Parts: sequence; structure tokens; C-alpha cells
Amino acid sequence: MSEALRGETAARRERLQQELVRHGLSGCLVTQNVGIYYWTGSMQTGYLFVPASGEATYYVRRSVVRAQAESTVRTVELGSFRGFGAKLAEDYPACFRFGTRAVLGADLDVMPAQLYLRLRELLQNAELTDASALLRRVRSVKSPGEADAIRKAAQVAAVALDEGLRQLREGMTELELMTVIEHEMRKQGHVGLMRMRGYNQEIMIGMIAAGAAAAEPSYFDGPAGGRGLTAAAPQSASTRPIGRNEPILIDIGCCIDGYVIDQTRTAVIGTLPPELARAYEVSVEILRRTERDLRPSISPEQLYAQALEMAEQAGLARHFMGYGADQVRFLGHGIGLEIDEWPVLAKGFADPLEPGMVLAVEPKFTFPGLGVVGIENTYLIRESDCESLTVSPEKLFVLP
Amino acid sequence: MSEALRGETAARRERLQQELVRHGLSGCLVTQNVGIYYWTGSMQTGYLFVPASGEATYYVRRSVVRAQAESTVRTVELGSFRGFGAKLAEDYPACFRFGTRAVLGADLDVMPAQLYLRLRELLQNAELTDASALLRRVRSVKSPGEADAIRKAAQVAAVALDEGLRQLREGMTELELMTVIEHEMRKQGHVGLMRMRGYNQEIMIGMIAAGAAAAEPSYFDGPAGGRGLTAAAPQSASTRPIGRNEPILIDIGCCIDGYVIDQTRTAVIGTLPPELARAYEVSVEILRRTERDLRPSISPEQLYAQALEMAEQAGLARHFMGYGADQVRFLGHGIGLEIDEWPVLAKGFADPLEPGMVLAVEPKFTFPGLGVVGIENTYLIRESDCESLTVSPEKLFVLP
Repeated sequence: MSEALRGETAARRERLQQELVRHGLSGCLVTQNVGIYYWTGSMQTGYLFVPASGEATYYVRRSVVRAQAESTVRTVELGSFRGFGAKLAEDYPACFRFGTRAVLGADLDVMPAQLYLRLRELLQNAELTDASALLRRVRSVKSPGEADAIRKAAQVAAVALDEGLRQLREGMTELELMTVIEHEMRKQGHVGLMRMRGYNQEIMIGMIAAGAAAAEPSYFDGPAGGRGLTAAAPQSASTRPIGRNEPILIDIGCCIDGYVIDQTRTAVIGTLPPELARAYEVSVEILRRTERDLRPSISPEQLYAQALEMAEQAGLARHFMGYGADQVRFLGHGIGLEIDEWPVLAKGFADPLEPGMVLAVEPKFTFPGLGVVGIENTYLIRESDCESLTVSPEKLFVLP
Repeated sequence: MSEALRGETAARRERLQQELVRHGLSGCLVTQNVGIYYWTGSMQTGYLFVPASGEATYYVRRSVVRAQAESTVRTVELGSFRGFGAKLAEDYPACFRFGTRAVLGADLDVMPAQLYLRLRELLQNAELTDASALLRRVRSVKSPGEADAIRKAAQVAAVALDEGLRQLREGMTELELMTVIEHEMRKQGHVGLMRMRGYNQEIMIGMIAAGAAAAEPSYFDGPAGGRGLTAAAPQSASTRPIGRNEPILIDIGCCIDGYVIDQTRTAVIGTLPPELARAYEVSVEILRRTERDLRPSISPEQLYAQALEMAEQAGLARHFMGYGADQVRFLGHGIGLEIDEWPVLAKGFADPLEPGMVLAVEPKFTFPGLGVVGIENTYLIRESDCESLTVSPEKLFVLP
């Protein structure tokens, strides 16, 4: 592996250790594949233990050979799972002192309860506590290398969008358009999946839907879900043909080398209904205003509140980020190895932004029966401003 | 929704209730999207409660409108999560009697620990116990409608394989071949994702890899994982060009209307090395033998044991289902809404097969540095035999 990766993952573990100390935790057990990759450089099956101070260990079940080739930390064979508690206690006597009860953090927001209950039995001198917030906070600040990876994904998304728009025709189905874009991304190295952290949340390369189908209510934790192909995967593109004079929402991303991008553009064959054209303009205004303020010192919840206020002033509050009961209460989200990272531009995220954070900002308006309009870019927070990582042209794509 | 779906999901809930009674559980909480869909016909965000007797309720957070349109059970708005415990107790007084402690099953193999801990707090008069085995067992027997859905997926996989083989050329990368097949599947209605139940397990449309890259050890819980594009998604196709005289393993599936198929064919441009050609023949012999015995009355572990014995007799034990330390200890797996369903053809699965079970059988042999050969079909267990749902021609595809 590269020296850069070695240094970068070491810095990431150091930031995690600072947080562990700050929260009075003896160490942290990372069980999720994405977290393991982030802190080791390897995504094999196993567990990563990071003590509050000292060297981390990656206990690998499979494949040990591959983990040893990729990992930047001490990597050993897990052996029998039953013996894992004893092994940890032996490797980290300072964390598991006889007669005391260590408090360990773990990624309980993703770890299955079955595994949690087994680990709790195995780690008899330790208590497992939920460290998901802490883990997500550490990951929210990206290194220059991570920002570069997202830039590469942005390039691929832009090429794929171009190709999609080139082939877009009236009567083409949503699925056909999605397939064109997806195929182009895949040829450019999209890994074929996009990761979401939220339980039961899934995503293909995003959501492409037009007119009424785009505006259908959905389980998906985003402003627009789409009709989808089946009740067994009720989101994104359907087989509905794309018509004239209806908004075509192209909310897409791809995953290059583990990192994802998220962007949205609106297109139309013909002309948008005036109400929707106006709403599209308001989404651009909200994006511009957010961009101006998107820098360290402002908080995510302030950004959400001011976007909401702009939507209200435009008389579009009921349409903002979904419609009525199906509205979501955020303006955007962190993004990196997962598409639903922290911080969320939402109430409750009061800590100011920090340089290195990467955020997708996605003001959208939903009109039941008519469609969804909006725009989305992904931004890197810099010392005193932000940089758009998204490179697709910013406009309403109007086809004759 | 259709009357057929209504009847079918009612029958599924009845089978679940029989199991609940048999295990002395007062009811069961289903939290995973796939389970909710299986028992309600809808995959919105929420929780399904199935009492040991009486009507089930689907408590929906989002989208209530869509859930009510799709669901075959009583569907209500979840409301505040904090009030969920009280709501359940009110709706099911027989399950949550004052002064007693109800024991409820839940899908703890997939439910995140964080959610488990919150639910345990909310359900103060009830204990949550792991019912994953029970839930998986009910789902292992497919209805005729489910078998038909898998048949449709098999048709799409066959068309896509044809197209892939038509375009296969020496020097084409594994990713290019995968992209061709994936694109064809998507055009035919593949929903764009394949579901796996196992924690941290992921899958694209499968694994396409040739020569040495196919034989690389992998975290993936299957006989062959592949090199992949990056350490951040270390499986399946890589950008390695496909060469002459090396096995090309095409292990693919797709998801049509929620149901997945899994099949493998081996191809070669030129000629296979004699050792690998022989191993391929042994994989076919194992498949034939397994097929003959694949019917009610035999147990999954018997099928695995006899396949292992055949591999040993052929002197290929070290190469069977992966190589050396990276071998997996199974011959196949149940399949349906998820690709890793029950039963597994492995030790520990001693209950005899039942009519309606659907199983992917995948004898494979791994040769480090050289590649992987094998074959895989998906079968439906019938009253006294089995039916192959896979329709791709069964042969070693030899290209000039």
C-alpha cells in the first residue's frame, strides 16, 4: 500500500483516539466494513479495535492474506470468535484490567443486535456503548485525498449525465434513461454499488424520474423517491415514458474507489409549467444563498433554517423537500464513503461546519401529479469559503 | 393490490404465527425492509407486528399513503416513535398483559443494536428475543408465485449471459464484460440492486473474473470473490484484461420484481489447462449427483458431505469452494428475496428439504494463480424431485 494511505489512516486513527479520550472511552470496536476500511485501508471481514492510546489491531476472519496486504495497522487472524474476548483482553491489558469494567465504544447504529449480544457476552469485563455519533463525526472531516476521490467521482457523474442528456428523447422510459447513465458510469469505473448507512435505506445510482412519477411519496429518506419498478424496490426510475413539458429530475451519483458523489439536474423536453419553472428558480436562489454561507462558523441548522425561510417567502413551503406529510426536514447531507454521512443540514446539527467537510446541498420542490424540480451540488468546505466539487453545467436543460 | 398477493401474504403470516406458537412467543416484530415486504406486500419505512394469533399491524413512518395502497394488512401511521410501545400495548392487550412479561421475537440478525436498545426501552413489559432463524425458516419455502418470480429473473439472466458471450473478446477487461451483462439485465428490468442479508456482505450483479484475478482470496462469503476495482469494494470484476486459455467465471444474478436468481457458467477463449478442464468436469458431476438427490427427505448437510466426498475422491479437496484457508464450507444456499437465504447446503442444516424451497447449487474449484471453474444452477424442490429454474445452456463455453 502507498505511504500516503499509511499516513492518512494513521491520522484518522489519531483523531478517533482523541475523541475516545474526550469521551472517557477505553477503546472502540469497529465492526462495519466501511469503518474498517476508513481506519485500516482494508475491507475484509473482521473487527478493528482502536484503544484510546497505543496501536490498533485488525482481527480478520477472511481473507487474512488480503487484509495483511492492504491494511495499514497490525493485522492478525481472528481465530475462533468464542476466543475473541480473551484475545482482546490479552492484547490490551490496559483496557481490560482485572477488577475494572472498561467502557468501549462501538458502531451500534449499524452493528446487528445479534452480534452486539454475542460481543457483550464475550467481552465480560467491558461494556459496549454507542459510539456512532463519535465515529461519524471523525469521518465527517475529509482529507485532501478523500476530497480528490470525490472529485474523480464528480467527473464520472458529469460524463455520464452528458451521455444521458445526449440520448434523452420523448417517450424514452425513466428506466431507459437511467440505464444509459448507469452504463456510462460503470464503464468509467463506478464500482457498481453506492453505500448508505441508514437501516433499510438503499440506493441504485440515484433517482431519475419525471413528472408525476417523480413526485410520488416514498420511504426513501430524501426529498424525492420516485415510483420505482416494483413495490419490492419502491424508489427511483419506473417504466413510465418521459413526456413533454414535465420536469425530469436527474439525481445521480457514482462510486469511484469507494467515494461517492451526489448531484441533481433538472431537464425538460419542451417547457416547464410556469409554477414549476418558478420553483426551479427558487431552488437555484437557495443554492446560491447557501453556497455564499457555506463555510466554517455557520451551523448546518442555520443553513437549513434560512433555506426553509426562503421557501416560505416564495410561498413554496408546502412543496419544499417533498410534499406535505412526506417532506424531509433537511437541506443536504455529508457525503464520502457513504451517501448519508454527517453533518446533516438539519435542525439538531448545531456545531459549526469545519474545513474538510463535504456536503451535498439539494434544494428541491415537489408538486404532486406534476413532478419535482431542483438542483444539487456537492461542496468541500475550505478555510473561509467552499468549493463545488460538482462539475456538470448548472442550468435547466431544455430540449426542443 | 391483487387478490393473489393478498391471499399469499395472509398464508405467509399464518405460517409465521404457527411458528410463533410453536416457540412460545407472544408475537414478532419485523423491522427489516425485506421481511416487511414479504409479510405485507409493501416496503415502506416502519415496523410490522405479527401477534401469535389475530391480525397483524404495519406501523408506518413513511410513506403512509404508499403503504396503505400496497399493504395487505392493517396499516396505520406510526406517529412518535416514543409512543410506539404504548401503542403496541394498546393494540395488542393479549400480548402485553399487565403484570406479565411478553416474549416477542424480532429479526435481531439484521436489526441494528441501536434500534434494539431503543425498542427494549420502549417495550417495557416485553422481552425481545432473536427470532431470525424462525423468520428465515418460514421464508425458505416459496409459494408458486415466488418460484415464478425467480423463473422470470432466470430468463433475464440467460438473455444477459448470451449478450455477454456474444461480445466477449480476448483483451476485454473483466469490468467491460460485466458492464455488458449488467446493462442487458437492467434494460430487461433488473431493479439495480441485489439484496444480501449477511452483515457487511454486498453484491453487484455477481462476480465476473478470469484467471488469477478470479482465484484471489476475498472477504466475500462465497467460493470465489474476485479482485475487484478497489480495496474499498474488494470483490468481483477488475480491470484486468481477459486472456486466452484461462477460465472466465461468470457468476451472475439479477433481481426482477424483488426476486433474485444466481447462476454460474465457465467460459474460455482457447483451451482450459488440463487440470482445470478436469476440475470443471468434476463440478458438473457434483451438480448432476446433487440434482439427482435434491428432493424432500435429504438434508442440506448430507448434500454438502457427499459433494465434499466427490471432491476428495477426485483429489481436489484443497481446491473445492475456494482454496486452502479461504475455502467456504457450503455447496449452495437458499435464494429468494435475498441471495443468502436458508437453508444453506452445509453442516448444521440437518432438517430435510421441503417442497417449495429454492436453492442455488454451486460446485466450484479454485486454483491460485490460474483461476476458478465451476457451474451453478438454481433449483426448485418439488414433491419428489427438483426443477432447474436456470435456463442458460449447461456447458463450458469455448470461444475460438
